[in-house]
Amino acid sequence: MMRDLGSRDSEFIGLVKDIRLKLVELGQADPDEYTAVLMQGSGTFGLEAVVSSTVPPDGKLLVIINRAYGKRIAKIASVLKIDTVTLEYPENTTPDLEEIDDTLKAEQEITNVSVVHCETTTGIINPIREIGKFVAKSGAKYFVDAMSSFGAVPVNLAECNIDYLVSSANKCIEGVPGFSFILCKLSSLKETAGYARSLSFDLLAQYQGFEKNGQFRFTPPTHALAAFRRALAELEIEGGVPGRAERYRKNYETLVAGMRQMGFKEYLRPDKQGYIITSFLYPEDDKFRFEEFYDRLNEKDYVIYPGKVSDANCFRIGNIGRIFEPEIRALLGAIRETITEMGVKLKRSSK
Amino acid sequence: MMRDLGSRDSEFIGLVKDIRLKLVELGQADPDEYTAVLMQGSGTFGLEAVVSSTVPPDGKLLVIINRAYGKRIAKIASVLKIDTVTLEYPENTTPDLEEIDDTLKAEQEITNVSVVHCETTTGIINPIREIGKFVAKSGAKYFVDAMSSFGAVPVNLAECNIDYLVSSANKCIEGVPGFSFILCKLSSLKETAGYARSLSFDLLAQYQGFEKNGQFRFTPPTHALAAFRRALAELEIEGGVPGRAERYRKNYETLVAGMRQMGFKEYLRPDKQGYIITSFLYPEDDKFRFEEFYDRLNEKDYVIYPGKVSDANCFRIGNIGRIFEPEIRALLGAIRETITEMGVKLKRSSK
Repeated sequence: MMRDLGSRDSEFIGLVKDIRLKLVELGQADPDEYTAVLMQGSGTFGLEAVVSSTVPPDGKLLVIINRAYGKRIAKIASVLKIDTVTLEYPENTTPDLEEIDDTLKAEQEITNVSVVHCETTTGIINPIREIGKFVAKSGAKYFVDAMSSFGAVPVNLAECNIDYLVSSANKCIEGVPGFSFILCKLSSLKETAGYARSLSFDLLAQYQGFEKNGQFRFTPPTHALAAFRRALAELEIEGGVPGRAERYRKNYETLVAGMRQMGFKEYLRPDKQGYIITSFLYPEDDKFRFEEFYDRLNEKDYVIYPGKVSDANCFRIGNIGRIFEPEIRALLGAIRETITEMGVKLKRSSK
Repeated sequence: MMRDLGSRDSEFIGLVKDIRLKLVELGQADPDEYTAVLMQGSGTFGLEAVVSSTVPPDGKLLVIINRAYGKRIAKIASVLKIDTVTLEYPENTTPDLEEIDDTLKAEQEITNVSVVHCETTTGIINPIREIGKFVAKSGAKYFVDAMSSFGAVPVNLAECNIDYLVSSANKCIEGVPGFSFILCKLSSLKETAGYARSLSFDLLAQYQGFEKNGQFRFTPPTHALAAFRRALAELEIEGGVPGRAERYRKNYETLVAGMRQMGFKEYLRPDKQGYIITSFLYPEDDKFRFEEFYDRLNEKDYVIYPGKVSDANCFRIGNIGRIFEPEIRALLGAIRETITEMGVKLKRSSK
């Protein structure tokens, strides 16, 4: 973070090259078949780059939605005036595979399909591999928003039939915010000439820029990229995606066991629940006010997330980032202390 | 840079608020009349945000061009399929004010006008105040790309009749790359509802997000923003824009005097030349090869820019950034050494 590299400097060019290759490797992909394109800005900028650059001018996008981040993709397409059809599911449910298959068979004009891998509204993990089979069969291009899962939930790009996968520097790779990245199937990307609806977000042009001289077309966040290379090295030291998955899963298991013991209940059924982020129901005690709970935890240096589901009062706790089991145990201690301070009584689960 | 602030944390919200207020102040503007909107990504992302968010759906954009960065705005508009008319001038010439006035009178359907303040292709400074008078008279909205000048060349937003001014974190404010900022005349910005052609670049929505809860709509580059607040404090310590202008001007004068003494000549006439970046003509000696000159200076830790003009062989030297007179003198020494190593003979100017 403290290195001030020139964005057209050969050292920086080498750094970008390393990052791009390593990302393809994390997707268990062949660099002759897949490439990584880095995009300045937040994760949403990466999503918009894919939607605006890969749906043909007369194309039609199917957006599979089970809450906020699925909706965001539909919103991007709507602002871009892209013909869009949606399949919406309740937030505690994974998408209906049969209905997806039927829709793709019935609506032959669908050229692109999007789904969110880990929908962080709840923490649910969607079946991207199964959906990918139907999308591939239909001939449409398959776009996975893996913002909060990539680097921690193993994914094989080719086996899942993924054409485009988006994630961000500051999630499970544990870099700092400043850019997103898009893993692209080369044969699909190369078909998109003339599709781009934006200069900045032109995915093919960005790829061609990297291939031409190793450089970003426009000024990149050099410090965030240098930090990201270091973050990738730390991921490797931890044993790659499987190693990181193990730590996050352990965080999740420790968290849920401790929360259950106090009497908290999860919103999702365990078989739907990923180990990235967990939604917990508010305790059934009028003394529980979320704002107070949040502020008191914040004062103890623990930042949690408000809930985001519409049909239940929840808060969320994330397991990702530079967090290990001792931090989860300390958080559990802080939560226990906080509910005692608030005088909140929890009903212990019968288990 | 080493603080890891949460983007929805109250400390970070305060930091963003400070930055936005300070930027309006740097534009010598009243915060009731102007606001600052921060946009993730590079400077070009900020330009695209303005073009895509402020030209009405049936609007027409006049782009005043005297080289690469003017052309970039026209390119953005072209990809966005915005009706565009251009006025192009040679790269060593400032735009023809009378022709601009005539065009605005003749083409009443022009709703927006753009110009680059310091066209870094050459280093020329365009007369934004004079152009602003004609634009204001026409009723069109006035957009100034002040990427490489803001913070070092004083500008009074209201007096120049500017509706939108774009600059970037990593130029004359001396922050690190990661975001751009747009100074907006509030009454103009508020008229743009429904104009946005992108979710990420929606300028009005980004403004409304800041006003609602002080937050970015999508993850911001938190470390780059923290560094920027520090950079703004350093600007203040230096005496604000006038103080920084003085240092850069001194850098420029020292550079040009030393280069002339060696026999180098500037590309632009001094009355057109700003103190941000200077284009120098290649020496008239076959032994001068730019790549070798660049590499040898790079080895000595001095990074210069290749030329960008079409009608002459030039290289460019920037005066901005954390650079003081001793660094310029040391650069001059390195250039002298390098041309000696290369055996390049320079004809001393008669002065």
